Amino acid sequence: MKKKYLMTPGPTPVAESTLMAMAMPIIHHRHPEYMGILAEVREGLKELFNTKRETIIIASSGTGAMEGSVVNVCRKSDRVIYVNGGKFGERWGEIAAAYGVEAVPVDVTWGQAVEAAAVKKAMDEKPARAVLVQYTETSTGVVHPIEELAKLTKGTDTLLIVDAITALGVYDIPFDEWGIDILLTGSQKALMLPPGIALAAISEKAMKAMDESDLPKFYFDFRKEYKKISENSSAFTSPITLVIGLREVLGRMREIGFKNIYAESARMAAATRSAMEALGLKLYAPSAPSNALTAVLAPEGIDAQKIVKIMREDYGVTIAGGQAQAKGKIFRISHMGHVSQWDLLVTVGALEKTLARVGQKFESGVGCAALMKALGD
Amino acid sequence: MKKKYLMTPGPTPVAESTLMAMAMPIIHHRHPEYMGILAEVREGLKELFNTKRETIIIASSGTGAMEGSVVNVCRKSDRVIYVNGGKFGERWGEIAAAYGVEAVPVDVTWGQAVEAAAVKKAMDEKPARAVLVQYTETSTGVVHPIEELAKLTKGTDTLLIVDAITALGVYDIPFDEWGIDILLTGSQKALMLPPGIALAAISEKAMKAMDESDLPKFYFDFRKEYKKISENSSAFTSPITLVIGLREVLGRMREIGFKNIYAESARMAAATRSAMEALGLKLYAPSAPSNALTAVLAPEGIDAQKIVKIMREDYGVTIAGGQAQAKGKIFRISHMGHVSQWDLLVTVGALEKTLARVGQKFESGVGCAALMKALGD
Repeated sequence: MKKKYLMTPGPTPVAESTLMAMAMPIIHHRHPEYMGILAEVREGLKELFNTKRETIIIASSGTGAMEGSVVNVCRKSDRVIYVNGGKFGERWGEIAAAYGVEAVPVDVTWGQAVEAAAVKKAMDEKPARAVLVQYTETSTGVVHPIEELAKLTKGTDTLLIVDAITALGVYDIPFDEWGIDILLTGSQKALMLPPGIALAAISEKAMKAMDESDLPKFYFDFRKEYKKISENSSAFTSPITLVIGLREVLGRMREIGFKNIYAESARMAAATRSAMEALGLKLYAPSAPSNALTAVLAPEGIDAQKIVKIMREDYGVTIAGGQAQAKGKIFRISHMGHVSQWDLLVTVGALEKTLARVGQKFESGVGCAALMKALGD
Repeated sequence: MKKKYLMTPGPTPVAESTLMAMAMPIIHHRHPEYMGILAEVREGLKELFNTKRETIIIASSGTGAMEGSVVNVCRKSDRVIYVNGGKFGERWGEIAAAYGVEAVPVDVTWGQAVEAAAVKKAMDEKPARAVLVQYTETSTGVVHPIEELAKLTKGTDTLLIVDAITALGVYDIPFDEWGIDILLTGSQKALMLPPGIALAAISEKAMKAMDESDLPKFYFDFRKEYKKISENSSAFTSPITLVIGLREVLGRMREIGFKNIYAESARMAAATRSAMEALGLKLYAPSAPSNALTAVLAPEGIDAQKIVKIMREDYGVTIAGGQAQAKGKIFRISHMGHVSQWDLLVTVGALEKTLARVGQKFESGVGCAALMKALGD
């Protein structure tokens, strides 16, 4: 019997307790019991998002919340700046273009973080309605300097919109304190849920921008959804089971303590990087690696997709390959959400066996040993 | 211990076998195993939608597919005709308006079906890009004459877009044969799943219209999704657990036989109507009542919301009240999906007790007796 390990940067494993909570009989989304659940979720989300503001819940993948962020705050005549250093950065540009909004890229080599100065330069050249950026660029495993970017936009007319799909629940992101305007995420990453819901916290400044927006929207009309929040209701049929799962997850996260979860992600990420180094592998994003996932360059001359395939088929460990220009060059290991240090140990073990088969030279066991050492007691 | 019965026209109960299938550990949406699941789902959807065409699967509520249908086929300069006889009919108008598309209502009194002649008249007055209509208008419990409307649009430049959210899985809807252009549905009705996915079958004629469309879209870009179908993939992260649930449901529906399911819905709907009549109640949509749900006028002088509340709080049976102009006037009982004749018997029993308390005069037991008689052997 082959045990399976899901070590991809989304979807991530869902805990049994969440799966069981979601397997309870369906209740109606206007039923008082469900309204109570929504009220509880709202409280948990305030802690998760570090905000006094409310968070909207939408039935869609994370991309829906990205699109919603753009169409709710922008006007047809607007110009936005986006950090273009990976597949999800590119998506900001595609969304803006789809709505005829001028999208100015700040180009960043894949695997590198944007420099705040480059964004500042773009802002200085011509005023922008918003800066669009990923907290973690999932396709490269890099972390962009959101706190620094927030300093550029705070107090100006420019909004900071942050895709934290692969970051919220991994990093402490002080939404109110830093002055982020929209912080969005999806369910299938550090929130340890199946895919299907997107979440977005919205600042007062962003709400004001929405009043001026003239881009068309209906399902992703954030204001419509926002109005329903105080009634513990939703504009459209709520994704009931996922929200019930979210309540379970938030309850567990509050019990463990958010700070402890962030520290654990950092510890596991550092240990993973250490194991890769011991195996003679190079990180794809060495200067600013994310604590959500580790992107690793395949050894010279080896197709990374082959590593992914062997890991999955022969050892039961599903990791992710690269996307677009990084395809075949890198593989990606997640250490966010419902992933333990033992899952990482198994993953490094399977990687060792795989690397040996594709001809990488290293002393058997050094990866696991480095991981153990770095994990500490 | 109070047993609970969910008898609302969406969400509907989810079978234990589906809940358990969805509670299995998450697999990755690009994993070969998941691609096999999507392939199986595609086959089932062809039977459900009565079509040789492919059906797209989107993570959103049904409204997302309504909006998608409009923005994918229409041009800014277009005019659409919509059947305006309930809350969901109105929504067509709101969506079109949000995108600046001229929306011409064919007004219908709530509780009545549209007459095909009225739609024809609107089409004759000025060419329309599309006719937008509900199969069942969930807010009134009426069935619109889709086969007749299809005769008006087939072979013309006008598309027929049908919201079958509360119809597919209840009625045999010959998509190819009638010549419907977009047939859309949601997961939380006769498909017996939690809310969170929308489905849409798209005709060749609609695909051609999409090539001409100039309305902005990104997440709801049907062509992008359509292209991924043949690879058993999706444009964005697939709502994995719900799709796994869909496979389980479609497997069960195929086993039972779609025609048998439609016949069973018809039998239960007829019996429900018969029970209401025996209790001295009037249907809200007497001329064209849906087999998905029965909308019933509360007795003269009685607030329907009170009936709904007593049913839920004192007898554990959740039915739906009316919406918008029908609020307080009607209540609605579902008989689609994973609802059995015994659930209906319980519902009628609870309704009898409730009606007696609010002062409706009838001989105790006549509702249940009428239901039993109409259900037959």
